[in-house]
Amino acid sequence: MIPTLQSLIGGRWIGREAATPLHNALTGGLIYHTHADAIDFGEAVHYARKTGVPALMKLDFQQRAAILKALALYLVERKEELYAISHLTGATRADSWVDIEGGTGTLFAYASMGGRELPSSNVLHEGPAMALGKNGGFAGTHILVPRGGVAVHINAFNFPIWGLLEKFAPSFLAAMPCIGKPATATSYLTEAVVRMIHESGLLPEGALQLVIGSTGDLLDRLEGFDAVTFTGSADTAAKLRVNRNLVAHSVPFTAEADSLNCAILAPDVTPDDPEFDLFVKEVAREMTGKAGQKCTAIRRIIVPETMVDAVGTRLRERLAKVSVGDPSVEGVRMGALASKDQQRDVGERLALLAQGNEVLFGERDGFNPVGDGVADGAFFAPTLLLCRDGMANDAVHDVEAFGPVSTIISYHGIDQALALAARGKGSLVSTLVTREPAIAAYAVPMAAASHGRVLILESEAAVDSTGHGSPLPQLKHGGPGRAGGGEELGGIRAVRHFLQRAAVQGSPTMLAAVTGEYVRGARVQESEVHPFRKYFEELHIGDSLLTHRRTVSEADIVNFGGVSGDYFYMHFDEIAAKDTQFGQRIAHGYFVLSAAAGLFVSPAPGPVLANYGLDNLRFVAPVAIGDTIRARLTCKRKVDRNRTDDKGVGQGVVAWDVQVTNQHDELVASYDILTLVMKRT
Amino acid sequence: MIPTLQSLIGGRWIGREAATPLHNALTGGLIYHTHADAIDFGEAVHYARKTGVPALMKLDFQQRAAILKALALYLVERKEELYAISHLTGATRADSWVDIEGGTGTLFAYASMGGRELPSSNVLHEGPAMALGKNGGFAGTHILVPRGGVAVHINAFNFPIWGLLEKFAPSFLAAMPCIGKPATATSYLTEAVVRMIHESGLLPEGALQLVIGSTGDLLDRLEGFDAVTFTGSADTAAKLRVNRNLVAHSVPFTAEADSLNCAILAPDVTPDDPEFDLFVKEVAREMTGKAGQKCTAIRRIIVPETMVDAVGTRLRERLAKVSVGDPSVEGVRMGALASKDQQRDVGERLALLAQGNEVLFGERDGFNPVGDGVADGAFFAPTLLLCRDGMANDAVHDVEAFGPVSTIISYHGIDQALALAARGKGSLVSTLVTREPAIAAYAVPMAAASHGRVLILESEAAVDSTGHGSPLPQLKHGGPGRAGGGEELGGIRAVRHFLQRAAVQGSPTMLAAVTGEYVRGARVQESEVHPFRKYFEELHIGDSLLTHRRTVSEADIVNFGGVSGDYFYMHFDEIAAKDTQFGQRIAHGYFVLSAAAGLFVSPAPGPVLANYGLDNLRFVAPVAIGDTIRARLTCKRKVDRNRTDDKGVGQGVVAWDVQVTNQHDELVASYDILTLVMKRT
Repeated sequence: MIPTLQSLIGGRWIGREAATPLHNALTGGLIYHTHADAIDFGEAVHYARKTGVPALMKLDFQQRAAILKALALYLVERKEELYAISHLTGATRADSWVDIEGGTGTLFAYASMGGRELPSSNVLHEGPAMALGKNGGFAGTHILVPRGGVAVHINAFNFPIWGLLEKFAPSFLAAMPCIGKPATATSYLTEAVVRMIHESGLLPEGALQLVIGSTGDLLDRLEGFDAVTFTGSADTAAKLRVNRNLVAHSVPFTAEADSLNCAILAPDVTPDDPEFDLFVKEVAREMTGKAGQKCTAIRRIIVPETMVDAVGTRLRERLAKVSVGDPSVEGVRMGALASKDQQRDVGERLALLAQGNEVLFGERDGFNPVGDGVADGAFFAPTLLLCRDGMANDAVHDVEAFGPVSTIISYHGIDQALALAARGKGSLVSTLVTREPAIAAYAVPMAAASHGRVLILESEAAVDSTGHGSPLPQLKHGGPGRAGGGEELGGIRAVRHFLQRAAVQGSPTMLAAVTGEYVRGARVQESEVHPFRKYFEELHIGDSLLTHRRTVSEADIVNFGGVSGDYFYMHFDEIAAKDTQFGQRIAHGYFVLSAAAGLFVSPAPGPVLANYGLDNLRFVAPVAIGDTIRARLTCKRKVDRNRTDDKGVGQGVVAWDVQVTNQHDELVASYDILTLVMKRT
Repeated sequence: MIPTLQSLIGGRWIGREAATPLHNALTGGLIYHTHADAIDFGEAVHYARKTGVPALMKLDFQQRAAILKALALYLVERKEELYAISHLTGATRADSWVDIEGGTGTLFAYASMGGRELPSSNVLHEGPAMALGKNGGFAGTHILVPRGGVAVHINAFNFPIWGLLEKFAPSFLAAMPCIGKPATATSYLTEAVVRMIHESGLLPEGALQLVIGSTGDLLDRLEGFDAVTFTGSADTAAKLRVNRNLVAHSVPFTAEADSLNCAILAPDVTPDDPEFDLFVKEVAREMTGKAGQKCTAIRRIIVPETMVDAVGTRLRERLAKVSVGDPSVEGVRMGALASKDQQRDVGERLALLAQGNEVLFGERDGFNPVGDGVADGAFFAPTLLLCRDGMANDAVHDVEAFGPVSTIISYHGIDQALALAARGKGSLVSTLVTREPAIAAYAVPMAAASHGRVLILESEAAVDSTGHGSPLPQLKHGGPGRAGGGEELGGIRAVRHFLQRAAVQGSPTMLAAVTGEYVRGARVQESEVHPFRKYFEELHIGDSLLTHRRTVSEADIVNFGGVSGDYFYMHFDEIAAKDTQFGQRIAHGYFVLSAAAGLFVSPAPGPVLANYGLDNLRFVAPVAIGDTIRARLTCKRKVDRNRTDDKGVGQGVVAWDVQVTNQHDELVASYDILTLVMKRT
């Protein structure tokens, strides 16, 4: 009995009748059917809007980040079930690792970045606020808020798990319910992980739906507050991008398309350098990893003309050692393509590439997949071509064989290498192998104009390098032009892409209310209790203390010099100090900072556990001998990360605005201090 | 003799034969013709790519910012010539001020923000760099670089000068040559300002071209590294967005479209509050300013049902006082629409709006434009409608009459007010008039999901308020959905939109070379001369000093407490300190900071003029009695703003990385200090 895959729509699994057959990539055997039962996309969108959005908005950024972490832990527990299914896609264990643990790793990373960088509310303040008038009554800033819409994520067949999770994680943090639509060929693996997620019960209702099969009229039902992401071919991206409804409503559409990525061997590297081996190894790994079915794989190997033969020889040696077949057989290093369709497609494109280019390595060099019953598998031999005049040949820069196929292209001079790289008209990633920082400084900014990511590889980096082909959650993924022009990942940037940015103008008091952060000039609450004696829950934004005063004397400067060892002429040399812009000796900036701490300290043990940092310190005006200073300390920002210390005591992060002023009420120093504050509960 | 307007293409003014006639908006008289001579857009694009890009790339961000300032000063000198021409568009002096001085003000603002925030190179580092491995050899960061392409800016008829300059300024900073295409009706004013810019000789060759008339096949000639911005109707935006060539190459397309902006009178405001007057005044000003031809104008006046009559009455009184006619006549407060076409169009849309809604004020209340020979002018009477059931009426949320036409819509409860605002399906701006911070805190994040900008207006803000209708260079302009989904302005964000972001991975040494900023772990240059004794030109990124050591004693803590007045228990109370996470008394963080300054200070007068600030201070580990600390000071970033002080001495900004470590080489404190350093020349 061949199982029928199901879609998860409106909180229910639907699909009973079999439709499209799906096959084991290694054997060609029938393993699943998609379902024939029609999906009501009206219901899907309605459920996301009416159930998903409110459920997600009941949580704040911090709480959603915590759910991502719990989900990642849950999936890691069950990962072997996923590895077993992933095997059917033709993937090796290493390939599956990228998909499965790369996916859960992305969840962990967004949980962690979200916890570190996002507020415990649903308003992300993108400050600082700035004065917009001369009287202090009017200011402006930016906030990012959840859009209140639905995210539709349309994915490629090559990473059925990572592909979903890397988009789900940031859109979930942004409080968008997600409708995921995997490519049909490997949709059974996405179905498996969504089933696990559903079983975990960790997500709020409506946060995730799954579409097996076609998207039907889904895109026609979206509005301007929704968002669509797409990973796949440039042709399909172009088709979806002009969807009449998406265009009419300016629905944000982010595409990440296959591209003709390259690796450049810089002119300084010789075959005797370890970097030469690094280059060959990286290229071979990218050609054969996931059987070359990565949108980041190296398609163009750009090599100095004098090195073409050496690189060709070393690559052939490496490729000859790659055992292709059923990855469950010991020693097999490359599996099958995902489907017979892919096998045919790669063959057709290889034929185009082979016109006018030499085949250095390929099927003729012997190709017999290892394993039992693999005769009908979707295998493809690693194939290396050589193009001796890359400026004259269009195909190598235009035709992508989405499999283990790459072309060596020879260049003359680094500028030609960069020109060849740019002929890809926009790619996801390029690797530059060089030993020379000066070459990197020259070449990388140029390569950056046409590549979403640039990897610089040499011995120092190689120890920890994550490799050419691996997008990381912290770094932007997506390139200009042919690569789709989109941006994914890149840390909290990705969350921002799913939020709506608005400028907000008004009085500082209003901006403080809206952003949840104290804004200079806003009304403060003079605290009867010292604010450092309040527990986290008791503190309010705007709670403020204006300290007693302190007159700065010559003795202070002398004493501070003695303690710090800082005898800078501006503080100690009357003769030289006369010639400065201040015309006299002034107090140390760090004395002002230290004296301010002495003014607002509350010495006995209390809820403030630590002052762990300080930001944006500016010494705005000098403090001279005889000046009298005081400080205003105001509660600026609170973040509840729902954390406890080793002893189970809850604590939160509190940032304080500090203004040190002189006897004329002029600001002399301005900064934020960062503290950990205990919770009462 | 009626002059023929000319295009500036390939560095030459072209156009001799007359084509479309353009008319004086006030009198209907013929004033200009567009030119019939065909433009060779291939030449225009080629010139921008081959002349403009290299010329712009010879300059760095700082130098381009300086050119913007010089250009602004030049245009301000000649502004009266522009006012004289602007009068022909039907604009009052106040309307023209927005266009002309708003335009030059935007140049000034981008010059200033660019000078403050951008490097003196063409690589903008978007850090911080982050470690990507455990051995310190591999890190990642992001850079933004010029795209190497062309910016095509297509503009609306209402702000012929500001419209060009607000897009030109950020794209010029981003080193993109610009091809500007104004709307034909008022293109004579854009031509005038471009002619001035050309005459100034301030711009590098190829930096600005002007298209009078149609864009022909211009868009079909663009590639993925180019960019297109559009301001105008949503319909035209949708048409251009699906241009086959733009889609095929993923050319970034930013649209800013007309939208149905609103102002909301919150439920807390009564007719006795000054905020009630503010609301009425703001609405009336937005209805009549620029004769309502602003994409930000208030089209929907959302008012509590109990206040509808009071607001209607007060608005009618105000509108009745607005004298409409030739702005050169004393007392005239509203001019004409830009053309007879606009006049007809507004009339047609008003007819749609009037169906099912009451007309509270309009032509029937008397309308006779003031002035001589204005019978054929494109005047339109201020018109106020009333919609009593905004949830049932679609037209008020869909039909925009691009003139002095607005509709009062009544609401019941703040949630309905917000729902009505969102019915605009995405707008550029909304104003909320309220006295209550709590109402703002509730309503603004919701309004922000569907508006690019939200103005909160009450008495405190009113003193300095720049008004509902005015986009500011510092704040984002552009809204989701119907408003086009684009982002313009918003400070340096706008420059970033015209740059290409790339992730860069490699060893810290390589990242430092590429970004021009020291990255932790990169190779440093142990400086023989103390780095603080080097002039700006002599300093190199990575120049570093490892100081002598200092053992921190109990006496240091005591003395520091005495000087600062900070007797916090962690430093002075052995009993309480035992219970902390550190288990013992530790030194003040500010002592560590001060002692580090004492370690790396170079006391005699030298090139370092001031330490004006400090960023990103983190106390990473405690310093206990008996610990021995030292500091490493490394030149991190240099910015040459081409500035001199009062005495003509050149100076630059230098940021230093400081790492304070203990006897175990563990990091105890980490921060950047900011200094001004003298130039030798």
